[in-house]
Amino acid sequence: MKILLVGASGTLGRAIADTLKHHEILAAGRSSADYPVDITDDASVEALFARTGKLDAIVSAAGVLHFGPLESMKPSDFAIGLNDKLLGQVRLALLGQHHLNDGGSITLTTGIVSEEPIRAGANASAVNRAIEGFVQGAAFELKRGLRINAVSPNVLSESWADYGPFFPGFEPVTAARAALGYQRSVEGIQSGRVFKVW
Amino acid sequence: MKILLVGASGTLGRAIADTLKHHEILAAGRSSADYPVDITDDASVEALFARTGKLDAIVSAAGVLHFGPLESMKPSDFAIGLNDKLLGQVRLALLGQHHLNDGGSITLTTGIVSEEPIRAGANASAVNRAIEGFVQGAAFELKRGLRINAVSPNVLSESWADYGPFFPGFEPVTAARAALGYQRSVEGIQSGRVFKVW
Repeated sequence: MKILLVGASGTLGRAIADTLKHHEILAAGRSSADYPVDITDDASVEALFARTGKLDAIVSAAGVLHFGPLESMKPSDFAIGLNDKLLGQVRLALLGQHHLNDGGSITLTTGIVSEEPIRAGANASAVNRAIEGFVQGAAFELKRGLRINAVSPNVLSESWADYGPFFPGFEPVTAARAALGYQRSVEGIQSGRVFKVW
Repeated sequence: MKILLVGASGTLGRAIADTLKHHEILAAGRSSADYPVDITDDASVEALFARTGKLDAIVSAAGVLHFGPLESMKPSDFAIGLNDKLLGQVRLALLGQHHLNDGGSITLTTGIVSEEPIRAGANASAVNRAIEGFVQGAAFELKRGLRINAVSPNVLSESWADYGPFFPGFEPVTAARAALGYQRSVEGIQSGRVFKVW
């Protein structure tokens, strides 16, 4: 398969690329030399698809959230996650559906905070939940056998030094294990699923 | 209690006002003479709270979504629901938390499409799910005994002529019955709940 991987240089993205290395991987991201993209911008995403040509799968491991205490959270803070991790990934799906071969798939990234709130995580809970709602609604409307899923990783072992204090008692998973969720989505038959890796 | 009701002139808003009429209701909305507000604008919402003074409850029955086929949906279409029903209601909560008396409550509106996708409803599924995620995350961070919940109504009987074709086999509920969910939130003790009226 010819797979576009957005967010390819991140911890999770590198593990996904490794897990899917028996496919042709187009490694995209903000700082990619070959496939640069800003997922918050329609024109940038359209330029990416013009460069890739037709695809068999689109995988996103990209997106920024806002973390901060609710008491001092401003609407503009909350909008960070809406415009980046949520609308950015939805943009890849909405524009990308027209660049997939029949039977192709879209895989987006949500996360455990969707179901397990953490301190300073109200934006993450909302954004991740929205991604899951989008995937579950969109799955039934996609044409030509296209599929869409999301993967919900726990906090990553590789990120534990930075994020561990926000996840007391959580059991981190390796990026390699989280990457299996993406393989289930890309190579499997299901659609409208949230594959939880926790 | 002194209750700010945003979206007071809509079908649902009028039913909520009637159900909560044993309280002092400040009826706000886009076209309200006494309490005009545009929930998509920080300054407008802050001006509203300056006008209301301290409150015991904030109830929102406001917010616009985008409905349309996934195949032709643009990122800018999807952003409609993000900026209005989602961020608009979150704005009421984030700014409003500072204008509530101790033990006060915030009640937002989600809807059945969160869990039951419909044709042309991908934006609604995402936005409603996000509101539920926000409420469930925010509930644990609110100070001073403040509470936050969401109410998820089924399609309303009063709106059936307009929306019925999008909800085949759904069993509409009256706005008066949906309004009971808001009473449970405002007068009850729970927080972080989604009260389903379906």
